[in-house]
Amino acid sequence: MDEFALIRRYFQPLPQRQQGACEGVSVGIGDDCAVLSVPEGQQLVVSIDTLVEGTHFLTDTPAEQLAWRLLGASVSDLAAMGATPSWLTLALTLPYADEAWVSDFSAALAEASQLYSIQLVGGDTTRGPLTLTAQVHGFVKTDAALLRSNAQIGDLICVTGTLGDSRAGLETLLTKSSSNTVVEYLRQRFYRPQPRVSTGQLISAYASSCIDISDGLLGDIQHILDQSGVGAQINPEALPLSAEIQHFTDDKTAREWALSGGEDFELCFTVPPEQWVSLQEHLQNHDVQVTPVGAICDEAKGLQLFSQGEWRAVAANGYKHF
Amino acid sequence: MDEFALIRRYFQPLPQRQQGACEGVSVGIGDDCAVLSVPEGQQLVVSIDTLVEGTHFLTDTPAEQLAWRLLGASVSDLAAMGATPSWLTLALTLPYADEAWVSDFSAALAEASQLYSIQLVGGDTTRGPLTLTAQVHGFVKTDAALLRSNAQIGDLICVTGTLGDSRAGLETLLTKSSSNTVVEYLRQRFYRPQPRVSTGQLISAYASSCIDISDGLLGDIQHILDQSGVGAQINPEALPLSAEIQHFTDDKTAREWALSGGEDFELCFTVPPEQWVSLQEHLQNHDVQVTPVGAICDEAKGLQLFSQGEWRAVAANGYKHF
Repeated sequence: MDEFALIRRYFQPLPQRQQGACEGVSVGIGDDCAVLSVPEGQQLVVSIDTLVEGTHFLTDTPAEQLAWRLLGASVSDLAAMGATPSWLTLALTLPYADEAWVSDFSAALAEASQLYSIQLVGGDTTRGPLTLTAQVHGFVKTDAALLRSNAQIGDLICVTGTLGDSRAGLETLLTKSSSNTVVEYLRQRFYRPQPRVSTGQLISAYASSCIDISDGLLGDIQHILDQSGVGAQINPEALPLSAEIQHFTDDKTAREWALSGGEDFELCFTVPPEQWVSLQEHLQNHDVQVTPVGAICDEAKGLQLFSQGEWRAVAANGYKHF
Repeated sequence: MDEFALIRRYFQPLPQRQQGACEGVSVGIGDDCAVLSVPEGQQLVVSIDTLVEGTHFLTDTPAEQLAWRLLGASVSDLAAMGATPSWLTLALTLPYADEAWVSDFSAALAEASQLYSIQLVGGDTTRGPLTLTAQVHGFVKTDAALLRSNAQIGDLICVTGTLGDSRAGLETLLTKSSSNTVVEYLRQRFYRPQPRVSTGQLISAYASSCIDISDGLLGDIQHILDQSGVGAQINPEALPLSAEIQHFTDDKTAREWALSGGEDFELCFTVPPEQWVSLQEHLQNHDVQVTPVGAICDEAKGLQLFSQGEWRAVAANGYKHF
């Protein structure tokens, strides 16, 4: 089957299936470009991300799980800006025209796209080593995007959900743990990240800066520190751990994974202390756990962890691709 | 060197070098997303394209030439919509952190970006088999995009420039032809496609449909026929050939390459006969050759070529990736 037939058969139907999401799309898949309209008073936010076989996922990862992880990870970048997802473009490189793979992938992509309210509007399918690139597009009110660059000394550092679960899920795969409810929970956290879209929108009125945790908390918060020109003190004992990770491994390993494990796709954000009470009130009717884990301090202190009764400097050690 | 250091050192400086192109960019490289503004009264057009080593280019193709081809091919999709280029995102997968490669690539990308007035606003750098994905963004006046779907029976079919040169350039590489002015010209046509941006904008007031020639004239015009519900008659003898291709090969091969060779990145467009005179007048002060090569006919005729004194049906045989 040639490239065009593949695209036509599996990706063309996506837009029709999600009628509700078609706003702003004058021309979708099938022309040289998609033609799109950004609503008045809104800015466009975009992020591009790649998953490579052998680097970001194990060989023989089911196509369905790749679709969820690709889209989840990408939409998480929109969440970190406080944005509303709108459109998706997809560049798919496949070793051969594997119809079963494309069928599984496109079905999962359709399901994930519907859940995240994002619409596939264009793509490219090429032959080569398995590589998946997604660009996500979203909207923020003009000048209301939540950036990395505005954290202030004294701000609380908060994280959503629980940390380390995705790293633990990877561990269950690497060690071929037998399936049980704990193992399945952790694997789902690895395979199906749930980007914090509505939480990102909710906190954007209170937070001073935000990033999504893709490379590990320590690596990612360093970006906030670099771009805001501040330091941070984080208490590892305060990190939120799931019951499942605590069941799966010892406390020391769980906290290490919570600090440095990648791909949790929770949000890490800073909030001025005077906003904390209002934020908490606002969060009461919202189904997400938000945990203060530290505070922003002077740049000279760098990044410090509380350990054995004192604050100690750490080198950022987020997951590196090289 | 880690991913972040690579990006910082080579890609961060791009926006600063091109101050003139920074319009509409509130946040460029360095946050979770770029934050961008589309001008009032304009629509956003986007296209994503991938080049894979071994599929789209030969191993050991210099990084500089890859940057030019990637950007040229992508911007050509904007040209085919009659759009004005604005922003670029880049997903780069590299086998290892090759500083010399990244340095050469980013320098050429900066030069090409400046020439095409497009600004790098975001990207992702990952480890894996050499794969380059670019998404280009541009603007068109609302509802003025030049589509594939509006060709009408009786319209003239026109192409810009000369065809087949890129395929001939590839041949000079495959056959390791010794360098001379003809060979160098053809190689440049292969390595440095010149997207017809200003021509696309100019013809958009006259043309009824348009596509850029990336897979070969026959393959690409088939997309116009499919989406407009029409047929086409093309006269191979009318195809514009460069002096160089005629010097490099025989007339039969040259016309075959002009019909089916990919990656010329010229425009193929249809124009109602009553617009032809105005278009020609308008083109007089514009440095581009436009050649009528056929006409749109009834869908039942399919795609026909004039050969040995009569019109004969052909199967579309554009370059296929699978």
